[in-house]
Amino acid sequence: MRAAALICPAGGARARARLARLAARGTTTGERVEADVRRIIARVRREGDRALLNFTRRFDGVRLSRARLRVPPGAMEAAYRSLPARVRRDLGLAAGRIRAFHLHQRERSWSFRDASGARLGQRIEPLERVGVYVPGGRAAYPSTVLMTVIPARVAGVREVIAVSPVGKDGDVSIVLAACHVAGVDILYRIGGAQAVAALAYGTGSVPRVDKIVGPGNVWVATAKRLVFGQVDIDAIAGPSEVLVVADGAADPELVAADMLAQAEHDPLAAAICVTPDHRLAARVAAALDRQLASLPRRAVAARSLANFGAIVVVRSLAEAVEIANRLAPEHLELAVRAPSRWLARVRHAGAIFLGQDTPEAFGDYLAGPNHVLPTGGTARFASPLGVYDFVKRTSIIEASPRTLARLGPAVVRLARLEGLDAHGRAVERRLAPGMGSPRGPAAGQGRGAKRSLAPHARAAVTPVRGGASVSAGSRPRPAAAHRGGGR
Amino acid sequence: MRAAALICPAGGARARARLARLAARGTTTGERVEADVRRIIARVRREGDRALLNFTRRFDGVRLSRARLRVPPGAMEAAYRSLPARVRRDLGLAAGRIRAFHLHQRERSWSFRDASGARLGQRIEPLERVGVYVPGGRAAYPSTVLMTVIPARVAGVREVIAVSPVGKDGDVSIVLAACHVAGVDILYRIGGAQAVAALAYGTGSVPRVDKIVGPGNVWVATAKRLVFGQVDIDAIAGPSEVLVVADGAADPELVAADMLAQAEHDPLAAAICVTPDHRLAARVAAALDRQLASLPRRAVAARSLANFGAIVVVRSLAEAVEIANRLAPEHLELAVRAPSRWLARVRHAGAIFLGQDTPEAFGDYLAGPNHVLPTGGTARFASPLGVYDFVKRTSIIEASPRTLARLGPAVVRLARLEGLDAHGRAVERRLAPGMGSPRGPAAGQGRGAKRSLAPHARAAVTPVRGGASVSAGSRPRPAAAHRGGGR
Repeated sequence: MRAAALICPAGGARARARLARLAARGTTTGERVEADVRRIIARVRREGDRALLNFTRRFDGVRLSRARLRVPPGAMEAAYRSLPARVRRDLGLAAGRIRAFHLHQRERSWSFRDASGARLGQRIEPLERVGVYVPGGRAAYPSTVLMTVIPARVAGVREVIAVSPVGKDGDVSIVLAACHVAGVDILYRIGGAQAVAALAYGTGSVPRVDKIVGPGNVWVATAKRLVFGQVDIDAIAGPSEVLVVADGAADPELVAADMLAQAEHDPLAAAICVTPDHRLAARVAAALDRQLASLPRRAVAARSLANFGAIVVVRSLAEAVEIANRLAPEHLELAVRAPSRWLARVRHAGAIFLGQDTPEAFGDYLAGPNHVLPTGGTARFASPLGVYDFVKRTSIIEASPRTLARLGPAVVRLARLEGLDAHGRAVERRLAPGMGSPRGPAAGQGRGAKRSLAPHARAAVTPVRGGASVSAGSRPRPAAAHRGGGR
Repeated sequence: MRAAALICPAGGARARARLARLAARGTTTGERVEADVRRIIARVRREGDRALLNFTRRFDGVRLSRARLRVPPGAMEAAYRSLPARVRRDLGLAAGRIRAFHLHQRERSWSFRDASGARLGQRIEPLERVGVYVPGGRAAYPSTVLMTVIPARVAGVREVIAVSPVGKDGDVSIVLAACHVAGVDILYRIGGAQAVAALAYGTGSVPRVDKIVGPGNVWVATAKRLVFGQVDIDAIAGPSEVLVVADGAADPELVAADMLAQAEHDPLAAAICVTPDHRLAARVAAALDRQLASLPRRAVAARSLANFGAIVVVRSLAEAVEIANRLAPEHLELAVRAPSRWLARVRHAGAIFLGQDTPEAFGDYLAGPNHVLPTGGTARFASPLGVYDFVKRTSIIEASPRTLARLGPAVVRLARLEGLDAHGRAVERRLAPGMGSPRGPAAGQGRGAKRSLAPHARAAVTPVRGGASVSAGSRPRPAAAHRGGGR
């Protein structure tokens, strides 16, 4: 294929067809895969470790024992120590920058008192235990270990479990080292749908987690979808994509280089350039041909370009940005003269790279923002993986007798309106003391009597007026947000 | 059934069995329902409005036309105006309090510059269009309309679409009125799996949305699960539950009243009291019998108690709280002397109600926090519905030549480590000017030449040292967060 064949005018049938294929990539899971995955999950759920070991032998071709499911403590650090100093420093640099960026995503619990004396707020706390899926084989990327584990650690997750299928040659040393750098607590030598099932339901050896994150093949993605609800999951990642919006000032060699960096991932990856400059389009095509020739992974990249590549010529940059909004690409490069000006027009993208000094590869490794991004148009509603994926919120409500006196009657009326009388009565009983428990001697354990013995139960409720309009800056961190000794 | 039969000691076989049933409620969707829902979705996707009208006739028994799919503009306000003044005021009070609480959940875009001169941040923006499912018939609760629509409006969602099946007697006036109060833009007279499919894929009349939220029956829940990925969804809500942790100071009549307020919802609802005081347990049982006798919905409440109710007697409050953590209940009432002290020990609950002055019913209607909460133990990892459910984040990355000079070599090495040469080359080209585009006269459109003509492309990048450790309070809102005229 010659890359010139990728050039097509926007609005034409060819451009439309190529862009439509983009959205359709990877949506076809196949019912047979799903049926198989259902069976694998059911069996791991029923038989635990035995099923896990059987499937690992069958699918990964590796004979493990219960004792060898887990990578020995110390092996991750040992793998890290065995790396050249240069690699250790690079991993450390990337980890430090990812951590620094994600620290900005931490949120604090908050509460306020309203005019009725009620205390209202939300406690924001880390998940307790998270499972990270790390693909094996050629897709074993240390950068993805950093990107998935570090946000969990920044969130304060108590225990981070990783799973990764062991190869026939044993552990993948760089994965172990990345797990050490990122801060994985325990690493299991399992993969595929069986590993997802083990994390979701727990087995004798693998503890049940609260959320499973990380990329994987179609078996892993299907298993994640099927266990969703039993545990939380991050998004189902599809194939990767980049859209480069370029004007006449863009360097065609750099546009081509960034397209190839995407195309080399996977034959399903998509690299697209949209430009109003037809001369640039031709130069990008020529650069693609030239650069492709010397690329180690040129077979993969060429297939990706042939399948899903495109150089779309539009009438204006505004039209280019509208195409970007329609596709909601995972990565959007603004290779234009004034990228900040165009940024405001972009409505949907996972990550936006401003100007040609910002190659996507910078973001893939160590800019700091996460490289786990919404794919396949889901940037319309989904977000990059972040600290917010590893916390949960709990609403805190504390009313006072004054609150109930002021607001209780409306609650009773609204409950009646919905035909939920017991809701109304639960409040009414609190409004009319005579209607509560009998106040006679038999009611010594009752509410009225004890109240006077335990004034601290009420002491916390001191009204603060205007609390409802308190600004973000003055949100107090409630004492409740500190964990008790019980954890 | 006599409520005394619900009393059981913790750790005993009966308590274990009853608590285990709790977690298993509502997990069985049934494969037949799923197959039917798949067919409904496929047909709406293929045939659009025609399928929608057919299914509405078949399942809801209502003959609509394309023109009558949508509730006429003005009808929502007219329904509101026709309500008694008292009801209008109550709905307004609830809406105002829900809005005030959710305003605290708004987040701002942020960015910082690091020491290398790179600008890094996240833009936080509302979803464009959201669909809210409002159940019909007896489960048409105006309070749920407020709880699902208002957070979307506070987030800044541009268009909120609601769907609700029309009854044989026509529109449900109170639902229309609640839609008006909450701020629904368009209401469609559709329900069931077909309504979910229409919102997910769009039809001639119903626009495609980015996220679908709101409770529904098993058809609706299954449809939401199946369209997840095409659009975002909130959690799949299961039956409701309350767990009341009570000590000897609790008023048994109030414990019973709150249990019944839960039990009256649904035969699958669960109301559980856990107490270390066996005398309280007996009194709660007696109060349940007494209060149940006069309850309009006593048939439903009695079935719920018989199926899933329990009064569990524990050895200590600490054990009671541990049971709560194991169940991760949707609603947790701390009907104890010093609720704030115990709050810190609670790890998993959707919403926590402190002290007996805080009945769950207060939270259900107008305390302010959302009543759409994680059910069935999912509070381990899920959160109440909130403003955060109606925004998405986009990472913003802008490097400078200095950034690349400092960090580029590490990117190149890490890319090579992963075998992704094209990634490395994309950065290398930017490091060695000679390796980019030719600098000869033919390169007039090239990067070097244009740079000098467009200095503003670089002007934005002025390094601010120490930006990476900027505190939350000093996060600037990037200009990028303001929407351009293109929207």
